[in-house]
Amino acid sequence: MKMGRIKLGMVGGGKGSFIGEVHRMAARLDGRYELLAGAFSADAKRAKESALDLGVTETRSYSSYEIMAEMESALPDGIEAVAIATPNHLHATVAEAFLKKGIHVICDKPLTSNLADAEMLAAVAKETGLVFAVTYNYSGYPMVRQAREMVANNELGELRVIQLEYAQDWLANDIEKSGNKQALWRTDPKQAGKGGAIGDIGTHAFHLSEFVTGLRATSLLADLDSIVEGRILDDNASILLQYENGAKGMLWVSQVATGNENGLRLRIFGSKAGLEWSQENPNYLKFSRLGEPANLISRGGSALSRAASDATRIPSGHPEGFIEGFANIYRDSADLITAHNNKSEINSLVPNVEDGLRGVRFVETAVSSSESGAVWLSLDV
Amino acid sequence: MKMGRIKLGMVGGGKGSFIGEVHRMAARLDGRYELLAGAFSADAKRAKESALDLGVTETRSYSSYEIMAEMESALPDGIEAVAIATPNHLHATVAEAFLKKGIHVICDKPLTSNLADAEMLAAVAKETGLVFAVTYNYSGYPMVRQAREMVANNELGELRVIQLEYAQDWLANDIEKSGNKQALWRTDPKQAGKGGAIGDIGTHAFHLSEFVTGLRATSLLADLDSIVEGRILDDNASILLQYENGAKGMLWVSQVATGNENGLRLRIFGSKAGLEWSQENPNYLKFSRLGEPANLISRGGSALSRAASDATRIPSGHPEGFIEGFANIYRDSADLITAHNNKSEINSLVPNVEDGLRGVRFVETAVSSSESGAVWLSLDV
Amino acid sequence: MKMGRIKLGMVGGGKGSFIGEVHRMAARLDGRYELLAGAFSADAKRAKESALDLGVTETRSYSSYEIMAEMESALPDGIEAVAIATPNHLHATVAEAFLKKGIHVICDKPLTSNLADAEMLAAVAKETGLVFAVTYNYSGYPMVRQAREMVANNELGELRVIQLEYAQDWLANDIEKSGNKQALWRTDPKQAGKGGAIGDIGTHAFHLSEFVTGLRATSLLADLDSIVEGRILDDNASILLQYENGAKGMLWVSQVATGNENGLRLRIFGSKAGLEWSQENPNYLKFSRLGEPANLISRGGSALSRAASDATRIPSGHPEGFIEGFANIYRDSADLITAHNNKSEINSLVPNVEDGLRGVRFVETAVSSSESGAVWLSLDV
Amino acid sequence: MKMGRIKLGMVGGGKGSFIGEVHRMAARLDGRYELLAGAFSADAKRAKESALDLGVTETRSYSSYEIMAEMESALPDGIEAVAIATPNHLHATVAEAFLKKGIHVICDKPLTSNLADAEMLAAVAKETGLVFAVTYNYSGYPMVRQAREMVANNELGELRVIQLEYAQDWLANDIEKSGNKQALWRTDPKQAGKGGAIGDIGTHAFHLSEFVTGLRATSLLADLDSIVEGRILDDNASILLQYENGAKGMLWVSQVATGNENGLRLRIFGSKAGLEWSQENPNYLKFSRLGEPANLISRGGSALSRAASDATRIPSGHPEGFIEGFANIYRDSADLITAHNNKSEINSLVPNVEDGLRGVRFVETAVSSSESGAVWLSLDV
Repeated sequence: MKMGRIKLGMVGGGKGSFIGEVHRMAARLDGRYELLAGAFSADAKRAKESALDLGVTETRSYSSYEIMAEMESALPDGIEAVAIATPNHLHATVAEAFLKKGIHVICDKPLTSNLADAEMLAAVAKETGLVFAVTYNYSGYPMVRQAREMVANNELGELRVIQLEYAQDWLANDIEKSGNKQALWRTDPKQAGKGGAIGDIGTHAFHLSEFVTGLRATSLLADLDSIVEGRILDDNASILLQYENGAKGMLWVSQVATGNENGLRLRIFGSKAGLEWSQENPNYLKFSRLGEPANLISRGGSALSRAASDATRIPSGHPEGFIEGFANIYRDSADLITAHNNKSEINSLVPNVEDGLRGVRFVETAVSSSESGAVWLSLDV
Repeated sequence: MKMGRIKLGMVGGGKGSFIGEVHRMAARLDGRYELLAGAFSADAKRAKESALDLGVTETRSYSSYEIMAEMESALPDGIEAVAIATPNHLHATVAEAFLKKGIHVICDKPLTSNLADAEMLAAVAKETGLVFAVTYNYSGYPMVRQAREMVANNELGELRVIQLEYAQDWLANDIEKSGNKQALWRTDPKQAGKGGAIGDIGTHAFHLSEFVTGLRATSLLADLDSIVEGRILDDNASILLQYENGAKGMLWVSQVATGNENGLRLRIFGSKAGLEWSQENPNYLKFSRLGEPANLISRGGSALSRAASDATRIPSGHPEGFIEGFANIYRDSADLITAHNNKSEINSLVPNVEDGLRGVRFVETAVSSSESGAVWLSLDV
Repeated sequence: MKMGRIKLGMVGGGKGSFIGEVHRMAARLDGRYELLAGAFSADAKRAKESALDLGVTETRSYSSYEIMAEMESALPDGIEAVAIATPNHLHATVAEAFLKKGIHVICDKPLTSNLADAEMLAAVAKETGLVFAVTYNYSGYPMVRQAREMVANNELGELRVIQLEYAQDWLANDIEKSGNKQALWRTDPKQAGKGGAIGDIGTHAFHLSEFVTGLRATSLLADLDSIVEGRILDDNASILLQYENGAKGMLWVSQVATGNENGLRLRIFGSKAGLEWSQENPNYLKFSRLGEPANLISRGGSALSRAASDATRIPSGHPEGFIEGFANIYRDSADLITAHNNKSEINSLVPNVEDGLRGVRFVETAVSSSESGAVWLSLDV
Repeated sequence: MKMGRIKLGMVGGGKGSFIGEVHRMAARLDGRYELLAGAFSADAKRAKESALDLGVTETRSYSSYEIMAEMESALPDGIEAVAIATPNHLHATVAEAFLKKGIHVICDKPLTSNLADAEMLAAVAKETGLVFAVTYNYSGYPMVRQAREMVANNELGELRVIQLEYAQDWLANDIEKSGNKQALWRTDPKQAGKGGAIGDIGTHAFHLSEFVTGLRATSLLADLDSIVEGRILDDNASILLQYENGAKGMLWVSQVATGNENGLRLRIFGSKAGLEWSQENPNYLKFSRLGEPANLISRGGSALSRAASDATRIPSGHPEGFIEGFANIYRDSADLITAHNNKSEINSLVPNVEDGLRGVRFVETAVSSSESGAVWLSLDV
């Protein structure tokens, strides 16, 4: 299936942004998109420089997303999709603006900075029928998809225990006070929302657990901390989870765990077997049937599921990394957009606006639980 | 410092016992003890066979611990210390009997099967002034002691987050129903007490966290599960902890975590550095100062603390294991007994009856918390 | 430094080619190239389909590289650089054709299938002054460049011992007989040249050792085997090396090492420290100063050299892989081409035609040594 | 099978000796020996102190091994076996003296410091029919024995490639010049023999390769270096090997490999599968069938061979280490001695005097090969 490249715009993610550049590399890797327009920054100078750097013509470098949505939707060859890489609190209005102009959305996570916005956005997206991808990018890793298939095929038996952790240390000091831009908005409730670490990284782990297990978490009990002095939002969280089938879970989220870089780790234990995946060495799954030696399943091997093979580009032993996993979200979104254009339907593993909404609900429920002294609260609507 | 060997007896731990043989190998490794007497089993035939195997003379192979305490204390060369390797519910009465005859005690964990027994025993032990060691053997590992020293020397800064886990899978099926002796008593409240997995292995992790951090846990919140159908005691536990300095902890205990053999793991995060230790590859500590490459500290290296060096027998790269760690508890207990004989005092890292009492309190508090729906309860008296 | 994208063509690497697609992903990742022309296959149908898939217009999809060189060089917006992804025996004539038309070359390794071709090509390239990159892509990994910097900065002291290995298992059976296209040409002396495994993968390890150590290997002793029955070229090689400073090396190359995927590994030992890098988990260097705990240096960390930082795209803990390393060769080549256009000179880490020539000399010397019964032969001209 | 403890003496291995204490811990662990006599040091004061420390009575602490052999053989309850832990050059005469008095021998490796001695000793031992164990202790590790069984059961298919390495760094400086006793005799040809590192550790790796593969190495090619200035014996060796079935091997031995502690590693590749074992984490085998995920086989698991299970003391996940492996040599030797006493025969995995002789031949052949400029020499008699 080959087709013309999808015309893409971007809001946010200008020079110096980590995630903006990741979105662009992900979009480029498979040659399925071309970046033609952008409102890369609220700062006009930075927006302009970013556009220049990225080969976006001056006329399609916009000073605001509203104008961009307006203008692009009027162009005969205007963008078909927009990537949103702004701080959280802008996701909702930006996404809404483009959706209303008939433009597909690829939005960073968490979906929005509060639940009301998330519900509004989910409703709008649903109404338009447009593609709405949320970049829970870790679900793009081939071995994560392999894990999902193995659970679905009952290779683990009934799931019993789910251990999740996402540990970093880059906020172990109050670097937001010394001008670190990445830290600044993530620790500011006005831009980030109610969740600190749980919004920034906890939502990834939460999404992954439901993605891989196929189970919904039904309730949680959370104890959130702001460990670094003066910080308002959580930077460490201890969470207990219950899943619909009775399985128990624990989730540890931290951005002050000294010595951890990007330690997202998933362990799932069933009655027949257990499996383990670690983001920092993502090309392997450790799979252990009860009473048998552990298997080290390698990305690209012959025994992998279709879902994993489709998400892999090069042979085993040639490591794929974060960008390739992120690019799978983009590639799959391209397939969705193409299918939409062809008025066909395809199955897709791309996290959608409902997944995004669920993530925001997770954040707000965790905050409520913790504020009530760590009590069980339902995650169902 | 060389001296005559300490005359040792044993209660429980006869043929087929895992832990009894471990106690004996630990006692033999350094040549500080000789095993001269035993009441190895309630089953007379098994007791006799065990004695024969172990070179214990027929006259000192006893049919009951009461007789053994009585007789040995009357012999001119009777035992000076007794090792107790029975199921939990017998620890209290057995230990009391020997203490009252002036015989030092090396007792397996948990100290007792209930809090009342533990308090009684602690009082008796205190009164006698005899040596009372509890085999929280993981504290005998050299790198665990190294970790303790590093925390004490403030190499980690203020401790913030403590992550504990102890995961096994040998109870993933209901093997207690098919006659597995080890499983049988551990899953039976009459013999094990109120705690299943939390008593059998959770107490180890709990002790280790206080041993290494030098902090007392002040409260806990526990959610215990009996996952395998028909099991009465917990086989999976999710626990949140608060430490006296404000640090937060999580403890996961499981005996149904498919693919885990004896996965005791300790991670401690401070404001300056973090460290990580795993029992299954126990000769290393991963130590990470904030912003610097992780260090892999190896047992036997030149930079180790005195406490770690004293607990090591062979050079780095020549792995020491579980038995050597366990043997450190025996070696240190021999030093304590020798000091007691010499009416001198020495500092010791050996877990004592107070540590044992604390472990039982941990178990009962966790059970209470869980029964109340996972609420915070104090661990202080 | 931002500029227009470099116009790129490709010879070979059509549909179903592993390495052709790798070249394209590498070219796309940073948006520095656009693929505009190609002679993707000797098979006309496959060539055409490949062009279509890749968005290359029909008029610039050529049936032969000679025509392509001729036509493209005549176009006002013809390609500025060509990527060569054919079997080895074609590299020389293809590269020569484009060089003679003033077109820069990015050529896969080994440079050619025989030494005479390699010397010719090196002479031609030198004469034209054009950019000639050879995709010894492993030198593009950030941590390989970090290792090189650390050696250059004397952090290891005088180098003493160099241990190299490159082990795979995909040729453990005679899959060339059952039509595996990748295996077919690599095991055929007419297409691959005199070297089997040592040409295909051994040259990578050889290049890496000189790249990282900054030392030339002065002589070698080789014992090559064709282990799988009926195979003509080597599939396992045992090689001893001597370096100009007196350091000793061992190089093991195998494509029949059951259980190995792409096991390229480099260990270097100096008088002050040693280091270790493994391609399958490429984001880390293990660095050990004599008598100190090993350091685990992570890609993206703050202490990294400029050379390593420049070669990295995302923060530590977010793994980069094979494609990113390969893309560094493309990105650096783009810088070289830009500098050439600007008549400026820049330092570059990109392997060049001399490195390519050296690799071919390595292959032929190893074959000669082995044919003489494993004798020392000089690697100097 | 239980019996009285074997009466053991020791020559060498006094206070401050690394290996002497290892022998004693190995002898103690299973309670099968009691140490009753010794000539612990040529230094009378040190000999006496050692005896005192070890609980050996003054009358059985000897000033020379000749007297000890004479006296002990005349005692009614004299020693039945002697452990020899002297420097290499004394092994032959000491062992001969005890053999001639009818006393079994457990001798450290290498067997002797030269081939003539080794041949003499093998002849003497054979003539007496006594038990003669050589402590190639790494063959005592359960997972090494498991590997041997798997090869013997053809689980790997025809063996093709054997990769061996034994890397340390403790001789990276000339510590023999500053009085390090361990270094002093090992680097002195008069005490160590012709081999430095290859004798001290290379023989271990060589023995292991034949032990596990069941193949004899038929020839070798060696390049030995004395890297540290002023050192006479080799401290780094690069060796190629050929095995009787045509398999090829490489062996790297180094005591100057900065960052290596006791890096003995064995990798074996057959037509069907490959396996890997590393001494520093000895409780696991990595086993990979061609085209399947790697298996991590754990000591103590249910699927292990009888040979491995018999050599293991505690369950999987409870690591056993160097001492336990060494103790298996002692335990098996006790079985051999008991069988000898009972005039019965048993199969045994204990390395014997022939294995010891073979090790010395390996050393001398390697030295000859290297002195001839790295040529192939036969290892057959």
